[in-house]
Amino acid sequence: MSSYPSGRTRIRRVPELAKYDQDTLYQIIDAAYVCHIAFYDGTSTHCIPTACWRSGGHLYIHGSNGGRLMKLLSKGVEASVAITHLDGLVLARSAFNHSMNYRSAVIYGQFEQVIAEADKSAALDALMDKIAIGRKDEVRPGNSKETAATIVLRVSLTEAAAKVRCGGPLDDAKDMQIGAWAGVLPLEQVQTTPMPDGKYSAIPKYVQEWGGSWPVICSTILAGLGIASSSHSE
Amino acid sequence: MSSYPSGRTRIRRVPELAKYDQDTLYQIIDAAYVCHIAFYDGTSTHCIPTACWRSGGHLYIHGSNGGRLMKLLSKGVEASVAITHLDGLVLARSAFNHSMNYRSAVIYGQFEQVIAEADKSAALDALMDKIAIGRKDEVRPGNSKETAATIVLRVSLTEAAAKVRCGGPLDDAKDMQIGAWAGVLPLEQVQTTPMPDGKYSAIPKYVQEWGGSWPVICSTILAGLGIASSSHSE
Repeated sequence: MSSYPSGRTRIRRVPELAKYDQDTLYQIIDAAYVCHIAFYDGTSTHCIPTACWRSGGHLYIHGSNGGRLMKLLSKGVEASVAITHLDGLVLARSAFNHSMNYRSAVIYGQFEQVIAEADKSAALDALMDKIAIGRKDEVRPGNSKETAATIVLRVSLTEAAAKVRCGGPLDDAKDMQIGAWAGVLPLEQVQTTPMPDGKYSAIPKYVQEWGGSWPVICSTILAGLGIASSSHSE
Repeated sequence: MSSYPSGRTRIRRVPELAKYDQDTLYQIIDAAYVCHIAFYDGTSTHCIPTACWRSGGHLYIHGSNGGRLMKLLSKGVEASVAITHLDGLVLARSAFNHSMNYRSAVIYGQFEQVIAEADKSAALDALMDKIAIGRKDEVRPGNSKETAATIVLRVSLTEAAAKVRCGGPLDDAKDMQIGAWAGVLPLEQVQTTPMPDGKYSAIPKYVQEWGGSWPVICSTILAGLGIASSSHSE
């Protein structure tokens, strides 16, 4: 995708920030756990957040087969999906030139239901892999009742566009002598201290490597308890 | 709002997570810089991210008067606005019981244009106050051309609902003996090191108090340059 794939994915506002390449799109999606889905149910337009993940050229979502979102989207209602990462506030020397740094993607299309058992399992495995590689083999897999209660949907990523702003403020030349502080106040989504539910004799690598100070706190507690650092007690 | 304000704001999926009180709604909105807006233009449904802020009982947005979003919404098109904060991944002992911690709000309504000059100025001042109290008096205010090029819209917060999940996994009793690590892997939006555009002899308090290690890095640089810690050079 070197150009916009359709009229409605052509970015009109500040078009120089548009990105139509697959790499950018996939990076934005893969960095997200949540998307917002817009759809019209014949009466109202809805905007609903839900978990999402990518596998190949599709964005996947899942939910209860009793839910309105799943029921409507599985009928092939036209939808629009947005994913946004806010990277910072951009402070300019004039009120008008303030901005934000962000990475966003908007996808248009109709969701289709993933019905074949093998495809559905593979899709749900991909979600578990997104949380942590290896975890799907540690937990109890879904039984037939749970799998039947879950709808998996996917939408093609062919009609999509990304928009990325990064960098400092773009002030008017005449404003450059104004003394107001200008620059970027960055925001970042970070991983913080894991909170175990229960006591464990071993901590998986993906929990040890999650951010925050828990492994350190844990080491200190363990040292106090005389337990080796490869295991811990809450 | 002790109960849902309308049929379409009644939360049907996991209704015990619903929050219809004003405090929760306002806290979720005030913690956000960005919302997603869904609307139907007669042909397609769109989901567009944009900056937002609250003043009193309304959510405000702004944009170029040449933009599609602003043009359509100012005509009173039905819209739905969602704000979502992701607080963590919830790892359960079964694949099926995995979840997420989040705070989300969905608002339904029609935007109205803020036209009166004084109201428009007050709304844009409130946006600047959200970035940092005091900043609006430091920067160059909008001139008549800039103000005319900006549309400010607002939507009432009367038809809205919030949904909040926090806490650990809810496993089935029969799964509690499974050894898989269970707990919360938290995610948090944090403020990181400010990045100045240019050199400043004084750093405003709101930049000093922004997160990250910049003030410390800065102090070190300043010490090396022989400059007092109340001012800095990039």
